[in-house]
Amino acid sequence: MTIQLYGFSTYAQSLVIIHVLKELGLSYEVIQPASLEEMKSPEYLATKHPFGKMPILNDDGFQIYETRAIVRYLVHKYQGTKTSNVLIPSDVQKAALVEQFISVEANYYNQPLAKMLTQLILAKKLGNEPDLKIVNEAREELDKNLDVYEKLLEGKDYLTGEFSLVDFLHIPSTYYAFKAGEGELWNKRPNVSRWWKNISERESWKSIVTEYKLDEVV
Amino acid sequence: MTIQLYGFSTYAQSLVIIHVLKELGLSYEVIQPASLEEMKSPEYLATKHPFGKMPILNDDGFQIYETRAIVRYLVHKYQGTKTSNVLIPSDVQKAALVEQFISVEANYYNQPLAKMLTQLILAKKLGNEPDLKIVNEAREELDKNLDVYEKLLEGKDYLTGEFSLVDFLHIPSTYYAFKAGEGELWNKRPNVSRWWKNISERESWKSIVTEYKLDEVV
Repeated sequence: MTIQLYGFSTYAQSLVIIHVLKELGLSYEVIQPASLEEMKSPEYLATKHPFGKMPILNDDGFQIYETRAIVRYLVHKYQGTKTSNVLIPSDVQKAALVEQFISVEANYYNQPLAKMLTQLILAKKLGNEPDLKIVNEAREELDKNLDVYEKLLEGKDYLTGEFSLVDFLHIPSTYYAFKAGEGELWNKRPNVSRWWKNISERESWKSIVTEYKLDEVV
Repeated sequence: MTIQLYGFSTYAQSLVIIHVLKELGLSYEVIQPASLEEMKSPEYLATKHPFGKMPILNDDGFQIYETRAIVRYLVHKYQGTKTSNVLIPSDVQKAALVEQFISVEANYYNQPLAKMLTQLILAKKLGNEPDLKIVNEAREELDKNLDVYEKLLEGKDYLTGEFSLVDFLHIPSTYYAFKAGEGELWNKRPNVSRWWKNISERESWKSIVTEYKLDEVV
């Protein structure tokens, strides 16, 4: 049975998983939920994600939720089987640095950025005015944290030095931030903008942008 | 060289690491920072943790920050070498479920609980009044999420079914929540309170409570 990803294909977290699936050379199908409300239904909570989130993955009957757990699972199960791309190195210390930066991404990058995008993109899509107080506070926090990224990326092409799973986790949300007109946060920092160029110009990502018509989303 | 943990030994995140070190049978030393302010110094930011947090770990020259990355590293490097305790199973699907629940703990348990404890314990220690609006909002969120835990723990002794790394991550902050008078959140739920009893009555944790005089902290 092919791998099934349950979630909106334009949703940043789904796109992280789709990108990893492509780099690992795996075939998959995306099942689009009927609506956002579906995630709050008793059936969804009981059988898909108990906290009412998406995406979730089903691999031949094995079901798992939470994006970072899903991509680690895919790497541990399939890395090296279809392509030679290395997303988590086998060396224990190198793998530990990937994990360190996955934690950095979750705590200091994705948290403020997701807050911004929820207002700038999702609220707008639902016909609501974005809450600019939330946007400004989140932007300020992200701006401060990108100063740290600028130092972390000094002399490096990727966060751990080599392209890895952690770089993937940044791509979809940053792509949307640029589409929402926030690109200056990245562009004004030489190391950060070089890194963004390195990771976003990867062929696998460009093919996703085309396939899922991401430039029509925002 | 022995493993060095840099951070306050009474800090919940340090205690997670100390607990893992003990279960793996590793010797270690804890280096206490001079003050909370030290974490904001240019030297600390440049050489220890670029976002000004603690704890960090140094294993014979290999330095790493972010608690969840540190404990994964310790497990991957040392599990099975000194004790037979299994914190992350070798089976790919079982390991994936540990990761799924680590993500659950970070997003739905630790976030509201850490907000509560920052007010109820840290603010108080620093001589400030706790912000009860923050406490109440965080408690409400945690209360709702513990309803989900109650379902997740139905018929199970531990989150994944077997004792694992993810259970460890819950222990120190929950211990402090009880000390801060919030135990009813756990006690009123039969499955959650049974689970809390299972994980907190482990000998390794009881020895940490005694060794680090945790009952004097709050």
